[in-house]
Amino acid sequence: MPHIELPPLPGIAGLLAAHPRTAEPLNDLAEALLRGPSPLTPAQRESIAAYVSRRNECEFCARTHGAVARRLGHDEAAEPDALMTALLAIADRVRVDGRSVTGDDIERARAAGADDQAIHDTVLIAAAFSMFNRYVDGLDTVTPADPAGYERHAHGLAEHGYLRPPV
Amino acid sequence: MPHIELPPLPGIAGLLAAHPRTAEPLNDLAEALLRGPSPLTPAQRESIAAYVSRRNECEFCARTHGAVARRLGHDEAAEPDALMTALLAIADRVRVDGRSVTGDDIERARAAGADDQAIHDTVLIAAAFSMFNRYVDGLDTVTPADPAGYERHAHGLAEHGYLRPPV
Repeated sequence: MPHIELPPLPGIAGLLAAHPRTAEPLNDLAEALLRGPSPLTPAQRESIAAYVSRRNECEFCARTHGAVARRLGHDEAAEPDALMTALLAIADRVRVDGRSVTGDDIERARAAGADDQAIHDTVLIAAAFSMFNRYVDGLDTVTPADPAGYERHAHGLAEHGYLRPPV
Repeated sequence: MPHIELPPLPGIAGLLAAHPRTAEPLNDLAEALLRGPSPLTPAQRESIAAYVSRRNECEFCARTHGAVARRLGHDEAAEPDALMTALLAIADRVRVDGRSVTGDDIERARAAGADDQAIHDTVLIAAAFSMFNRYVDGLDTVTPADPAGYERHAHGLAEHGYLRPPV
Protein backbone atom coordinates (compact mmCIF):
# COMPACT_ATOMS: atom_id res chain seq x y z
CA MET A 1 0.00 0.00 0.00
CA PRO A 2 1.38 3.44 -0.90
CA HIS A 3 2.45 5.70 1.97
CA ILE A 4 -0.17 8.32 0.98
CA GLU A 5 -3.68 8.05 -0.48
CA LEU A 6 -3.53 7.72 -4.28
CA PRO A 7 -5.91 6.71 -7.05
CA PRO A 8 -5.55 3.02 -8.05
CA LEU A 9 -3.00 3.64 -10.82
CA PRO A 10 0.42 2.00 -11.01
CA GLY A 11 3.81 3.62 -10.35
CA ILE A 12 4.13 7.29 -11.17
CA ALA A 13 0.68 7.41 -12.82
CA GLY A 14 -1.11 7.65 -9.46
CA LEU A 15 1.25 10.40 -8.28
CA LEU A 16 0.80 12.44 -11.46
CA ALA A 17 -2.98 12.11 -11.30
CA ALA A 18 -3.20 13.08 -7.61
CA HIS A 19 -0.64 15.92 -7.78
CA PRO A 20 -1.24 17.81 -11.04
CA ARG A 21 0.70 20.96 -10.06
CA THR A 22 3.99 19.08 -9.99
CA ALA A 23 2.86 16.59 -12.69
CA GLU A 24 2.92 19.27 -15.36
CA PRO A 25 6.62 20.24 -15.06
CA LEU A 26 7.56 16.56 -14.52
CA ASN A 27 5.84 15.57 -17.77
CA ASP A 28 7.31 18.58 -19.58
CA LEU A 29 10.79 17.60 -18.38
CA ALA A 30 10.37 13.98 -19.58
CA GLU A 31 9.12 15.20 -22.96
CA ALA A 32 11.97 17.73 -23.45
CA LEU A 33 14.63 15.25 -22.29
CA LEU A 34 13.42 12.07 -24.00
CA ARG A 35 11.68 13.42 -27.11
CA GLY A 36 13.01 16.96 -27.71
CA PRO A 37 15.87 17.79 -30.10
CA SER A 38 19.05 15.87 -29.20
CA PRO A 39 21.91 14.15 -31.03
CA LEU A 40 20.68 10.99 -29.25
CA THR A 41 17.63 9.17 -30.65
CA PRO A 42 14.55 8.70 -28.45
CA ALA A 43 15.41 4.95 -28.38
CA GLN A 44 18.93 5.71 -27.07
CA ARG A 45 17.56 8.14 -24.47
CA GLU A 46 14.84 5.73 -23.30
CA SER A 47 17.46 2.99 -22.99
CA ILE A 48 19.59 5.26 -20.75
CA ALA A 49 16.47 5.94 -18.64
CA ALA A 50 15.73 2.19 -18.41
CA TYR A 51 19.36 1.41 -17.54
CA VAL A 52 19.48 3.96 -14.69
CA SER A 53 16.12 2.74 -13.36
CA ARG A 54 17.29 -0.88 -13.50
CA ARG A 55 20.51 -0.03 -11.66
CA ASN A 56 18.42 1.85 -9.05
CA GLU A 57 16.18 -1.23 -8.84
CA CYS A 58 13.05 0.82 -9.55
CA GLU A 59 11.08 -1.99 -11.16
CA PHE A 60 8.14 0.11 -12.38
CA CYS A 61 10.38 2.65 -14.17
CA ALA A 62 12.81 0.01 -15.51
CA ARG A 63 10.04 -2.13 -17.01
CA THR A 64 8.15 0.86 -18.42
CA HIS A 65 11.11 2.59 -20.09
CA GLY A 66 12.63 -0.74 -21.17
CA ALA A 67 9.36 -1.47 -23.02
CA VAL A 68 9.29 2.05 -24.53
CA ALA A 69 12.90 1.70 -25.75
CA ARG A 70 12.09 -1.66 -27.39
CA ARG A 71 9.06 -0.17 -29.14
CA LEU A 72 11.25 2.65 -30.46
CA GLY A 73 13.67 0.12 -31.96
CA HIS A 74 16.21 -0.49 -29.18
CA ASP A 75 17.56 -4.05 -29.40
CA GLU A 76 18.16 -5.25 -25.84
CA ALA A 77 19.88 -8.42 -27.02
CA ALA A 78 22.60 -6.54 -28.95
CA GLU A 79 25.85 -5.42 -27.28
CA PRO A 80 25.81 -1.62 -26.83
CA ASP A 81 28.13 0.15 -29.31
CA ALA A 82 31.12 2.23 -28.17
CA LEU A 83 29.06 5.42 -27.88
CA MET A 84 26.30 3.84 -25.79
CA THR A 85 28.85 1.97 -23.65
CA ALA A 86 30.56 5.28 -22.82
CA LEU A 87 27.27 7.10 -22.17
CA LEU A 88 25.92 4.32 -19.93
CA ALA A 89 29.17 4.46 -17.93
CA ILE A 90 28.62 8.21 -17.38
CA ALA A 91 24.96 7.62 -16.49
CA ASP A 92 25.97 5.02 -13.91
CA ARG A 93 28.46 7.43 -12.31
CA VAL A 94 25.82 10.17 -12.11
CA ARG A 95 23.31 7.72 -10.63
CA VAL A 96 25.69 6.99 -7.73
CA ASP A 97 27.10 10.52 -7.22
CA GLY A 98 27.48 13.34 -9.74
CA ARG A 99 30.97 14.06 -8.43
CA SER A 100 32.22 10.62 -9.51
CA VAL A 101 32.18 11.47 -13.26
CA THR A 102 35.83 11.73 -14.36
CA GLY A 103 37.56 13.56 -17.19
CA ASP A 104 38.44 10.11 -18.60
CA ASP A 105 34.73 9.14 -18.70
CA ILE A 106 34.03 12.29 -20.73
CA GLU A 107 37.03 11.74 -23.04
CA ARG A 108 35.91 8.17 -23.76
CA ALA A 109 32.44 9.44 -24.72
CA ARG A 110 33.90 12.16 -26.98
CA ALA A 111 36.21 9.62 -28.67
CA ALA A 112 33.12 7.51 -29.42
CA GLY A 113 31.37 10.49 -31.05
CA ALA A 114 29.53 12.25 -28.20
CA ASP A 115 29.29 16.05 -28.41
CA ASP A 116 28.48 18.46 -25.58
CA GLN A 117 24.73 18.07 -26.04
CA ALA A 118 24.91 14.25 -25.93
CA ILE A 119 26.96 14.43 -22.72
CA HIS A 120 24.58 17.02 -21.23
CA ASP A 121 21.52 14.97 -22.12
CA THR A 122 23.02 11.76 -20.71
CA VAL A 123 23.87 13.44 -17.38
CA LEU A 124 20.44 15.08 -17.09
CA ILE A 125 18.57 11.85 -18.01
CA ALA A 126 20.54 9.97 -15.32
CA ALA A 127 19.88 12.78 -12.82
CA ALA A 128 16.17 12.99 -13.71
CA PHE A 129 15.66 9.24 -13.31
CA SER A 130 17.48 9.46 -9.98
CA MET A 131 14.51 11.70 -9.14
CA PHE A 132 11.68 9.74 -10.81
CA ASN A 133 12.90 6.44 -9.26
CA ARG A 134 12.96 8.00 -5.78
CA TYR A 135 9.53 9.63 -6.23
CA VAL A 136 7.97 6.30 -7.30
CA ASP A 137 9.67 4.16 -4.63
CA GLY A 138 9.82 6.74 -1.83
CA LEU A 139 6.01 6.79 -1.69
CA ASP A 140 5.79 3.01 -2.17
CA THR A 141 3.53 3.17 -5.25
CA VAL A 142 2.06 0.04 -6.79
CA THR A 143 4.31 -2.07 -9.08
CA PRO A 144 2.08 -4.34 -11.15
CA ALA A 145 3.40 -7.81 -12.04
CA ASP A 146 1.44 -8.26 -15.31
CA PRO A 147 3.60 -7.48 -18.37
CA ALA A 148 0.54 -6.50 -20.46
CA GLY A 149 0.01 -3.29 -18.49
CA TYR A 150 3.60 -2.17 -19.12
CA GLU A 151 3.21 -2.88 -22.83
CA ARG A 152 -0.01 -0.83 -23.01
CA HIS A 153 1.58 2.05 -21.10
CA ALA A 154 4.74 1.84 -23.25
CA HIS A 155 2.66 1.90 -26.43
CA GLY A 156 1.09 5.21 -25.36
CA LEU A 157 4.46 6.74 -24.38
CA ALA A 158 6.17 5.54 -27.58
CA GLU A 159 3.38 6.87 -29.80
CA HIS A 160 2.37 10.07 -28.00
CA GLY A 161 5.19 11.04 -25.62
CA TYR A 162 4.82 12.52 -22.15
CA LEU A 163 2.61 15.57 -22.58
CA ARG A 164 -0.70 15.12 -20.89
CA PRO A 165 -3.71 15.54 -23.14
CA PRO A 166 -5.23 19.03 -22.81
CA VAL A 167 -8.07 18.96 -20.28
CA MET B 1 36.50 23.42 -15.60
CA PRO B 2 33.02 22.07 -16.44
CA HIS B 3 32.85 18.89 -18.57
CA ILE B 4 30.98 20.77 -21.35
CA GLU B 5 31.18 24.34 -22.64
CA LEU B 6 29.03 26.66 -20.53
CA PRO B 7 28.68 30.41 -20.05
CA PRO B 8 30.70 31.72 -17.06
CA LEU B 9 27.86 31.40 -14.55
CA PRO B 10 28.06 29.41 -11.30
CA GLY B 11 26.40 26.07 -10.54
CA ILE B 12 23.08 25.37 -12.22
CA ALA B 13 22.86 28.92 -13.64
CA GLY B 14 25.24 28.12 -16.52
CA LEU B 15 23.33 24.91 -17.32
CA LEU B 16 19.96 26.68 -17.33
CA ALA B 17 21.29 29.47 -19.57
CA ALA B 18 22.91 27.09 -22.06
CA HIS B 19 20.05 24.55 -22.16
CA PRO B 20 16.78 26.53 -22.16
CA ARG B 21 14.54 23.66 -23.38
CA THR B 22 15.13 21.68 -20.19
CA ALA B 23 15.59 24.84 -18.06
CA GLU B 24 11.94 25.75 -18.40
CA PRO B 25 10.44 22.57 -16.83
CA LEU B 26 13.26 22.51 -14.23
CA ASN B 27 12.43 26.06 -13.13
CA ASP B 28 8.69 25.30 -13.22
CA LEU B 29 9.27 22.24 -11.02
CA ALA B 30 11.30 24.24 -8.47
CA GLU B 31 8.61 26.94 -8.37
CA ALA B 32 5.72 24.47 -7.94
CA LEU B 33 7.57 22.45 -5.31
CA LEU B 34 9.17 25.23 -3.27
CA ARG B 35 6.68 28.09 -3.70
CA GLY B 36 3.35 26.55 -4.79
CA PRO B 37 0.51 25.70 -2.37
CA SER B 38 1.66 23.31 0.37
CA PRO B 39 1.07 22.77 4.09
CA LEU B 40 4.83 23.41 4.43
CA THR B 41 6.09 26.99 4.34
CA PRO B 42 8.59 28.03 1.66
CA ALA B 43 11.20 28.33 4.48
CA GLN B 44 10.54 24.72 5.57
CA ARG B 45 10.71 23.48 1.98
CA GLU B 46 13.92 25.40 1.22
CA SER B 47 15.47 24.00 4.39
CA ILE B 48 14.63 20.43 3.24
CA ALA B 49 16.24 21.26 -0.14
CA ALA B 50 19.34 22.64 1.61
CA TYR B 51 19.53 19.62 3.94
CA VAL B 52 19.37 17.09 1.08
CA SER B 53 21.97 19.07 -0.90
CA ARG B 54 24.25 19.24 2.13
CA ARG B 55 23.93 15.49 2.72
CA ASN B 56 24.71 14.93 -0.99
CA GLU B 57 27.70 17.27 -0.57
CA CYS B 58 26.57 19.48 -3.44
CA GLU B 59 28.13 22.67 -2.15
CA PHE B 60 26.60 25.05 -4.70
CA CYS B 61 23.03 23.84 -4.03
CA ALA B 62 23.52 23.56 -0.24
CA ARG B 63 24.90 27.10 0.09
CA THR B 64 22.30 28.59 -2.27
CA HIS B 65 19.21 26.98 -0.69
CA GLY B 66 20.61 27.40 2.82
CA ALA B 67 20.84 31.15 2.14
CA VAL B 68 17.32 31.24 0.64
CA ALA B 69 15.89 29.40 3.68
CA ARG B 70 17.56 31.91 6.04
CA ARG B 71 16.16 34.85 4.06
CA LEU B 72 12.69 33.29 4.30
CA GLY B 73 13.00 33.10 8.10
CA HIS B 74 14.51 29.67 8.74
CA ASP B 75 16.67 29.74 11.89
CA GLU B 76 19.61 27.39 11.29
CA ALA B 77 20.77 27.70 14.92
CA ALA B 78 17.48 26.39 16.35
CA GLU B 79 16.85 22.65 16.87
CA PRO B 80 14.32 21.42 14.28
CA ASP B 81 10.88 20.77 15.83
CA ALA B 82 9.27 17.29 15.85
CA LEU B 83 7.63 17.81 12.44
CA MET B 84 10.81 18.97 10.70
CA THR B 85 12.86 16.24 12.42
CA ALA B 86 10.48 13.59 11.03
CA LEU B 87 10.39 15.15 7.55
CA LEU B 88 14.18 15.49 7.35
CA ALA B 89 14.48 11.81 8.32
CA ILE B 90 12.19 10.88 5.40
CA ALA B 91 14.13 13.19 3.07
CA ASP B 92 17.39 11.53 4.06
CA ARG B 93 15.96 8.05 3.36
CA VAL B 94 14.73 9.17 -0.08
CA ARG B 95 18.11 10.75 -0.83
CA VAL B 96 19.84 7.40 -0.29
CA ASP B 97 17.18 5.11 -1.84
CA GLY B 98 13.42 5.63 -2.16
CA ARG B 99 12.81 2.06 -1.06
CA SER B 100 14.35 2.71 2.36
CA VAL B 101 11.42 4.84 3.62
CA THR B 102 9.58 2.76 6.24
CA GLY B 103 6.03 2.76 7.55
CA ASP B 104 7.47 3.90 10.90
CA ASP B 105 9.09 6.94 9.24
CA ILE B 106 5.69 7.90 7.83
CA GLU B 107 3.89 7.26 11.15
CA ARG B 108 6.37 9.46 12.99
CA ALA B 109 5.73 12.29 10.53
CA ARG B 110 1.94 11.90 10.83
CA ALA B 111 2.17 11.90 14.64
CA ALA B 112 4.07 15.21 14.40
CA GLY B 113 1.31 16.74 12.24
CA ALA B 114 2.24 15.87 8.64
CA ASP B 115 -0.64 15.19 6.24
CA ASP B 116 -0.45 13.39 2.87
CA GLN B 117 0.51 16.57 1.02
CA ALA B 118 3.38 17.36 3.44
CA ILE B 119 4.69 13.80 3.07
CA HIS B 120 4.34 13.96 -0.72
CA ASP B 121 6.09 17.32 -0.94
CA THR B 122 8.95 16.17 1.31
CA VAL B 123 9.55 13.04 -0.80
CA LEU B 124 9.41 14.96 -4.08
CA ILE B 125 11.71 17.76 -2.81
CA ALA B 126 14.26 15.13 -1.70
CA ALA B 127 13.91 13.33 -5.05
CA ALA B 128 14.17 16.57 -7.06
CA PHE B 129 17.31 17.68 -5.24
CA SER B 130 18.75 14.20 -5.85
CA MET B 131 18.40 15.31 -9.49
CA PHE B 132 19.54 18.94 -9.21
CA ASN B 133 22.62 17.94 -7.17
CA ARG B 134 23.62 15.32 -9.77
CA TYR B 135 23.02 17.73 -12.67
CA VAL B 136 25.23 20.41 -11.08
CA ASP B 137 28.01 18.04 -9.95
CA GLY B 138 27.82 15.53 -12.83
CA LEU B 139 28.84 18.25 -15.28
CA ASP B 140 31.40 19.70 -12.85
CA THR B 141 29.96 23.21 -12.87
CA VAL B 142 31.69 26.09 -11.11
CA THR B 143 31.24 26.40 -7.31
CA PRO B 144 32.23 29.94 -6.28
CA ALA B 145 33.91 30.43 -2.90
CA ASP B 146 32.72 34.01 -2.28
CA PRO B 147 29.67 34.11 0.06
CA ALA B 148 28.45 37.41 -1.45
CA GLY B 149 27.44 35.74 -4.72
CA TYR B 150 25.28 33.19 -2.89
CA GLU B 151 23.59 35.96 -0.92
CA ARG B 152 22.81 37.92 -4.10
CA HIS B 153 21.46 34.81 -5.81
CA ALA B 154 19.45 33.86 -2.68
CA HIS B 155 17.98 37.36 -2.48
CA GLY B 156 16.60 36.97 -6.02
CA LEU B 157 15.19 33.48 -5.34
CA ALA B 158 13.66 34.51 -1.99
CA GLU B 159 12.03 37.61 -3.50
CA HIS B 160 11.03 36.40 -6.97
CA GLY B 161 11.06 32.59 -6.97
CA TYR B 162 12.24 30.33 -9.76
CA LEU B 163 10.28 31.43 -12.81
CA ARG B 164 12.53 32.95 -15.40
CA PRO B 165 11.68 36.48 -16.45
CA PRO B 166 9.70 36.53 -19.69
CA VAL B 167 12.08 37.08 -22.62
